[in-house]
Amino acid sequence: MGRTSDARERILTAAKTLMLSRGYSALGVAEICKAAGVPKGSFYYFFASKEELALAVIDEHWTGQRAEWTGALDGDGGGDGADRALQGLRRLYEFTAAELRAGQRSCGTVTGCLLGNLALEMSTGTATVRERLREIFDEQVALVEETVAEARGRGEVTVADAHEAARALVAQLEGQVLFAKLYDDVGRLDVLWPNSLALLGARTSSTTD
Amino acid sequence: MGRTSDARERILTAAKTLMLSRGYSALGVAEICKAAGVPKGSFYYFFASKEELALAVIDEHWTGQRAEWTGALDGDGGGDGADRALQGLRRLYEFTAAELRAGQRSCGTVTGCLLGNLALEMSTGTATVRERLREIFDEQVALVEETVAEARGRGEVTVADAHEAARALVAQLEGQVLFAKLYDDVGRLDVLWPNSLALLGARTSSTTD
Repeated sequence: MGRTSDARERILTAAKTLMLSRGYSALGVAEICKAAGVPKGSFYYFFASKEELALAVIDEHWTGQRAEWTGALDGDGGGDGADRALQGLRRLYEFTAAELRAGQRSCGTVTGCLLGNLALEMSTGTATVRERLREIFDEQVALVEETVAEARGRGEVTVADAHEAARALVAQLEGQVLFAKLYDDVGRLDVLWPNSLALLGARTSSTTD
Repeated sequence: MGRTSDARERILTAAKTLMLSRGYSALGVAEICKAAGVPKGSFYYFFASKEELALAVIDEHWTGQRAEWTGALDGDGGGDGADRALQGLRRLYEFTAAELRAGQRSCGTVTGCLLGNLALEMSTGTATVRERLREIFDEQVALVEETVAEARGRGEVTVADAHEAARALVAQLEGQVLFAKLYDDVGRLDVLWPNSLALLGARTSSTTD
């Protein structure tokens, strides 16, 4: 069983790398198996279809990313300044930039956000994948909303609707990551923090770094 | 020549519709020809490759959209209120929402922004397409920047860097259009206007409608 478990993991890793660089539609099962170094029979032992693989890749990706988001937003690294809750948001942006930079080093180019890429490529197609992506982005908004609500509770920001503000922050993140990918420039994310302060009506005027 | 001109136009229209609903990679030339009702020979008479067709679709789309953007941003429909320059931005968002709604009516679902979709799908692939998309988004930012600079000159907004602010507005637009597509809900764009006022440090507190 050790060997088959390893094959599943290798298929997932190869598929994620290929989906990040080339999208989902252009990929074939044969190509994924070749990159993973597993026979096609193994693929269908683990996954009923390419779509089922996509769902597994999405889930594995978000499980890891959610842990990072939670750590950044809830973490205790913000000190005790006047914008302690808000600093969680800043750590989230730093994590995102670091993740894009790591991808850039390994792929040679900014590959962007796997979930955003798939949202645009697949949301008019497969209902199952679209539904899963909606749930994940809802979860992202909920995580950010907690931070915004906390910041508002502490008087760090003046924004009225924490839910709508969280949506705006996640949309801004996706938009800037799109441009980071298109222009192959992670520096595009530097504006996320000052723009978030403006969107939230922040009382502090923290520097961008 | 009348007939061949018509064939080119039909190929472009069919390709744009298919690219909006299913992306670029998943499309084949045969499928495009079938949807356009032209023989495959006609296709290669007009386009050397699928990539050349994609560039033509992008150019035709942006030519039409640029006229709309210019009209909205420069138009004289903003009255002479305290936020006259800013109102151009508001008309741009209204145009975008109307365009998405029209697409939703004809396709049954929000198909999003053709350029943003292609940016995520193709920017790690074809250098020619990526280059063209960069030029177009640069142009979009330049158009919005003019409006922001004018608004700043008239004291409507306080933002320091008009170029950076314009980038933020276009990124916000792409991010919210991504979610309008994923959630099949054009209402997601309603926040563009109030969020833009926050991002720009607008002096006025215009209502959202």
